[in-house]
Amino acid sequence: MRRPLNFNAGPATLPLPALERARDELLDFAGSGMSVMEHSHRGAEYEAVHDQALSLLRELLSIPPGYEVMFLQGGASMQFALVPMSFLHVGGAADYVVTGSWSAKAHAEALAWAHIASAHVHLAACTKEDGGGYHRVARVDEAKLDPQANYVHWASNETIHGVQYLEVPRFGAAPQVCDMSSDFLWRKIDVAPFSMIYGGAQKNIGPSGVTVVIARREFVDHGRRDLPSILQYRAHAEAKSLLNTPPTFGIYLVRNVLEWIKGLGGLDVIERRNRAKAGALYAAIDADAGFYKAPVDKGSRSVMNVVFRLPSEELEKRFLDESKKQGMVGLKGHRSVGGIRVSLYNAVELEWVEELARFMKDFAKRSG
Amino acid sequence: MRRPLNFNAGPATLPLPALERARDELLDFAGSGMSVMEHSHRGAEYEAVHDQALSLLRELLSIPPGYEVMFLQGGASMQFALVPMSFLHVGGAADYVVTGSWSAKAHAEALAWAHIASAHVHLAACTKEDGGGYHRVARVDEAKLDPQANYVHWASNETIHGVQYLEVPRFGAAPQVCDMSSDFLWRKIDVAPFSMIYGGAQKNIGPSGVTVVIARREFVDHGRRDLPSILQYRAHAEAKSLLNTPPTFGIYLVRNVLEWIKGLGGLDVIERRNRAKAGALYAAIDADAGFYKAPVDKGSRSVMNVVFRLPSEELEKRFLDESKKQGMVGLKGHRSVGGIRVSLYNAVELEWVEELARFMKDFAKRSG
Repeated sequence: MRRPLNFNAGPATLPLPALERARDELLDFAGSGMSVMEHSHRGAEYEAVHDQALSLLRELLSIPPGYEVMFLQGGASMQFALVPMSFLHVGGAADYVVTGSWSAKAHAEALAWAHIASAHVHLAACTKEDGGGYHRVARVDEAKLDPQANYVHWASNETIHGVQYLEVPRFGAAPQVCDMSSDFLWRKIDVAPFSMIYGGAQKNIGPSGVTVVIARREFVDHGRRDLPSILQYRAHAEAKSLLNTPPTFGIYLVRNVLEWIKGLGGLDVIERRNRAKAGALYAAIDADAGFYKAPVDKGSRSVMNVVFRLPSEELEKRFLDESKKQGMVGLKGHRSVGGIRVSLYNAVELEWVEELARFMKDFAKRSG
Repeated sequence: MRRPLNFNAGPATLPLPALERARDELLDFAGSGMSVMEHSHRGAEYEAVHDQALSLLRELLSIPPGYEVMFLQGGASMQFALVPMSFLHVGGAADYVVTGSWSAKAHAEALAWAHIASAHVHLAACTKEDGGGYHRVARVDEAKLDPQANYVHWASNETIHGVQYLEVPRFGAAPQVCDMSSDFLWRKIDVAPFSMIYGGAQKNIGPSGVTVVIARREFVDHGRRDLPSILQYRAHAEAKSLLNTPPTFGIYLVRNVLEWIKGLGGLDVIERRNRAKAGALYAAIDADAGFYKAPVDKGSRSVMNVVFRLPSEELEKRFLDESKKQGMVGLKGHRSVGGIRVSLYNAVELEWVEELARFMKDFAKRSG
């Protein structure tokens, strides 16, 4: 059967070569006669994969040598707690910029910890509108920043609301901590302005269950030292992400995906692919602007998660039903906002988007 | 090639049918044309697996209805921190029983949190010997228990030292919290005396990256409520382990392993298998007691991790080299204690152990 055109928001479609490799060697990894899952995380066979995944990330992003790269567990949601636990110092403060559900969640988790740690968390900016939606990113000049903040936290892309920073902002002089879960590795970025970047793997680089953290070594070193060790980034960095048993199969698959990216030509090629996909889809929306409504301000339109509405919920339901019959899955908007959402992560092919655009044109013509 | 006789301590060997199923449907799960990894964790296809894994666990262990069953991330090591964070109340106390490296680690993590939470953690019993080793479990009558403790924490099996509680102890009247990472599901046990049981999946029931938690609902409900939500067992239980994106592929494999256990005939059959394997191996050690030295007291000998020494490190090295040539892997003792360790988790076959026992007999004869 033909592979569905999978526009899931995460866990999301993975590159076919990465999956085929996993299938082909599932019972016999590296000529060992065992699955990679059955290998010790301290053995040479697994360690080679682990090290390769780390070094591919360093290579693809040109991560400067003063940065730690870690594979952790718990998803971005776990980092929402661990970041303030390590970096919000007793009596200190952190600034949060909120542009959608995920950065709002990060802010709420930090507030909970601030209460325990006798520290402060400020809402430096929030683009939530009266109706409850988020339709744009925050401008640096509207953020009320504390020059003494331990860090500033923001999210580069909001999966649910389809809002993305297309230019990398710099919120003041404090260390910049960024949740890049849903647009990590969509293109090459300069890591140097960031003190920490983190993200769940299950959008652009692998299956769920692996979380990538890239952090400046000095920043990690200044983290709180009296926490249980498993909660400290320092301990994970020092142990090369082998402090405890890592999710070995997940990291193996991340390795496979990173190899696929490298084989395509690296992040410049990935960026061109992603821009072409998003360009084709927004063009289809704008071509039938009387029928499809993209709620996000043009300057904040996400390249990764494209959200739009149809004239009625009934039409949206029909849109989902008919597109599904044509082999397109994952198009339903998040339950908190409704509508249509198209996720265009790295492994989505341009041809899928072109097929969707044709369907959209036809659907609007028939229903408009 | 023949599958190696894999005696790894975890990640460990998995049942071949569970792996074969994963391979066969890696690119086409439930007739969807997509990998299970590519499905949304909120979709019907994945949810069916998630629910089946939870209900198989309930069925195999006859878990009473007043208990929550959760699949979390972070391994037992993460629970070492999360347990005191939730259940060690401000000004309260917890008792820790230490019988090896893992329960010692749990104790250390709890101490760190107690300092932050203005609470107390007591070392109720510790069987560490002057030389640094652990050779037995703790007797209930030697534990100095605080009748007001918020909970008592102990580990049912110590992977590194090969020490196991063969009878389930009850340390006083306080809620019993047990790390069962390395002997979870080795046999049927009565869950009712426990307030919480937890364990990493990568020994007996799946790959690394999934952590099982079984907890009495009332106990969970009394957990601290002002922590960031991701750190609260309550939030995970209420969300049916879908608070954030779970490690979907790992849980899918756990489901496959649990189905294999059920297909074999359930935990009574598993227990007979495990007792036969351990019986054969300890018999081989004791038959050449002048050559092989099992350091653990007979009443504490682990059915899961069998540790022993040879007369010299040189002989141990030769033992490892020769056994490896005969297709046996994972026999090296933990780097902190040396010697030989044979892990006999559920998926290890009796024939493998018999082959190892024959090798041991021959090796002793040639080298003794």
